[in-house]
Amino acid sequence: MSVTAAKGFTAAGIAAGIKENGNPDLALVVNDGPRRAAAGVFTSNRVKAAPVLWSEQVLKGGELTAVVLNSGGANACTGPKGFQDTHATAEKVAASLNAAGHDETGGHAPGHVAVCSTGLIGVLLPMDRLLPGVDKAVAQLSPHGGEKAAIAIKTTDTVHKTSVVTSESGGGWTVGGMAKGAGMLAPGLATMLVVLTTDADLDSEVLDRALRAATAVTFDRVDSDGCMSTNDTVLLLASGASGITPGYAEFAEAVTRVCDDLGQQLIRDAEGASKDIKVEVVNAASEQDAVEVGRSIARNNLLKCAIHGEDPNWGRVLSAIGTTRAAFEPDRLSVAINGVWVCKDGSVGEDRELVDMRYREVHIVADLAAGTETATIWTNDLTADYVHENSAYSS
Amino acid sequence: MSVTAAKGFTAAGIAAGIKENGNPDLALVVNDGPRRAAAGVFTSNRVKAAPVLWSEQVLKGGELTAVVLNSGGANACTGPKGFQDTHATAEKVAASLNAAGHDETGGHAPGHVAVCSTGLIGVLLPMDRLLPGVDKAVAQLSPHGGEKAAIAIKTTDTVHKTSVVTSESGGGWTVGGMAKGAGMLAPGLATMLVVLTTDADLDSEVLDRALRAATAVTFDRVDSDGCMSTNDTVLLLASGASGITPGYAEFAEAVTRVCDDLGQQLIRDAEGASKDIKVEVVNAASEQDAVEVGRSIARNNLLKCAIHGEDPNWGRVLSAIGTTRAAFEPDRLSVAINGVWVCKDGSVGEDRELVDMRYREVHIVADLAAGTETATIWTNDLTADYVHENSAYSS
Repeated sequence: MSVTAAKGFTAAGIAAGIKENGNPDLALVVNDGPRRAAAGVFTSNRVKAAPVLWSEQVLKGGELTAVVLNSGGANACTGPKGFQDTHATAEKVAASLNAAGHDETGGHAPGHVAVCSTGLIGVLLPMDRLLPGVDKAVAQLSPHGGEKAAIAIKTTDTVHKTSVVTSESGGGWTVGGMAKGAGMLAPGLATMLVVLTTDADLDSEVLDRALRAATAVTFDRVDSDGCMSTNDTVLLLASGASGITPGYAEFAEAVTRVCDDLGQQLIRDAEGASKDIKVEVVNAASEQDAVEVGRSIARNNLLKCAIHGEDPNWGRVLSAIGTTRAAFEPDRLSVAINGVWVCKDGSVGEDRELVDMRYREVHIVADLAAGTETATIWTNDLTADYVHENSAYSS
Repeated sequence: MSVTAAKGFTAAGIAAGIKENGNPDLALVVNDGPRRAAAGVFTSNRVKAAPVLWSEQVLKGGELTAVVLNSGGANACTGPKGFQDTHATAEKVAASLNAAGHDETGGHAPGHVAVCSTGLIGVLLPMDRLLPGVDKAVAQLSPHGGEKAAIAIKTTDTVHKTSVVTSESGGGWTVGGMAKGAGMLAPGLATMLVVLTTDADLDSEVLDRALRAATAVTFDRVDSDGCMSTNDTVLLLASGASGITPGYAEFAEAVTRVCDDLGQQLIRDAEGASKDIKVEVVNAASEQDAVEVGRSIARNNLLKCAIHGEDPNWGRVLSAIGTTRAAFEPDRLSVAINGVWVCKDGSVGEDRELVDMRYREVHIVADLAAGTETATIWTNDLTADYVHENSAYSS
């Protein structure tokens, strides 16, 4: 159901010919209202793709009537022509929707159309194929188009990712979404694009607050390979079609649940990975410390290789902790791997032979013994398949 | 010639049985004076191995008469017993040297013996084999022992690394050294141990100044995999045996040349690497900016995979630059790979097909167009062999 689980949305996913292999590569999500509130979170990379620069501007108005997404090209580092192409795409979406009589109550304007792109950096999009593709997508818009849209935004994804949370409160409302990629926001990697929709009746300020709170503890803590994309975008659109205005806490929790679910799907489908690693930092002096330590562990290539080899190498965990500015005493650090405290008080703990690492999920707990705060970062192991996939990508 | 190229030094390298495969694993370097000035630079990892904690204390006196180094065990995260073992090793070295009558002019004291260890973290050293090994090493000390010492400190190194610079000025003096590992100091990785010796007649303050200046632009800019070791140590010992006191600039240059040569040898022997990548950042607003950008590029796993695949993927270079705080405008960034400016002014430049990447050395130039400062960071590609070597290490 994806982005069309919430009432008031239609979507489509088609093959426009942007990808040379003929796979679906263009997705369209349209908010039919009555509301058009929206919020967005974007990559913190200072080298931003043209669609990110465009969509950031568009979102300042707090309204979106449509989102168009393409795979097969990131439109990043493409200069003024790349930005013109993004602009032309938004104009085409608005014109095509208007021409199709899709909106009876006011018409679509390019300034309310967000654009997302993903694929190789530094290549211009084939606009001669993309623009006709927009007409095709508009013609196929459907309240059941969510799955097709989710499929059309895949790049190296092996499966498409969708999630829906429905609340019965107040008569019933829904948050749904789709995602592609395997990464994170700030920083992030192999581009993550996410579109969330809801039929709850909320304004853009509430959406923005809920979206930032949700991404901070979900996508922002998914760190597959430490590389930040130029294109990461997470959008949340509200149609208000349920007529229900949930309380903030309840709504934010629903958004967080959808983001968490999609984030987990990203990790499970990360390029070349054979293990999903949950890095839980406990007893930190601050949440910031916990996140810094978790990220440092999650990015340690030597540790990621060890986990790949099913080696409970806690020394590499301590090495990674030692590079941070977090509050801790080296001789009070403890580390558990899959429930076995292999390191206690900075030194050898329980027998490492007790650690069972046969399964895909690996759970590392790092106890800083410096406070009461906690944070969880998800990452993957580093594998020969990752190297292969990313060394053969553009050549 | 290694550490015995300079007059006033003897060295030995023997198999003490620390390594189970019977390879050499214990090295000893002795300064026979007349001077015993010394300086050291250590890992900035806050989780420091016992020998680092010990040697940092010892160096505060500015004097060393001997350095003992073992491979086969890092003695890191080994608690109070690990520190006791380091202490016992220094005591054994002093006692054994004194018993052998090695020093006729004052005797050796443990407080003048630095200890370095490298190998797996979290395992106690087999002291029942290490301590008798010290006697064996003392018995084999020789003014020609430099090569054997360099061989005994190898872990995953495929070759031993030595370097010598000789100056004719003032009658002749020498700086020599040995190194193991593939990494850097701050941060660093798979432990780097370096011992430099000179027969120049200089005090510890001059040595310290020259050593810090040299490591800042050499080992500190060698970043094979971004992982910082708990054991990195670089020591510089001066015997004064040449009777010559060179000027600071001349001496610092000689130390820098030896460090640069050894750093290059480390990169060329990095675990699993198939490419040596020189990342040169030019036209930065500050040297600090240049180093930050260079490090960010050097640590980008996606780029390192691309280089492995001989793919001149400049988009990943721009992505990496975008994650830094350095001064730059995205649309003024340019990137050359092996002499071809594949990215100009933040967008597509010369034809990427012109880039020849068949050879082991790859040269990336990132032009920030923001000033006049420059810095060069060396790294390696990311390969399936790296994954294999580091996933099979301790299991």
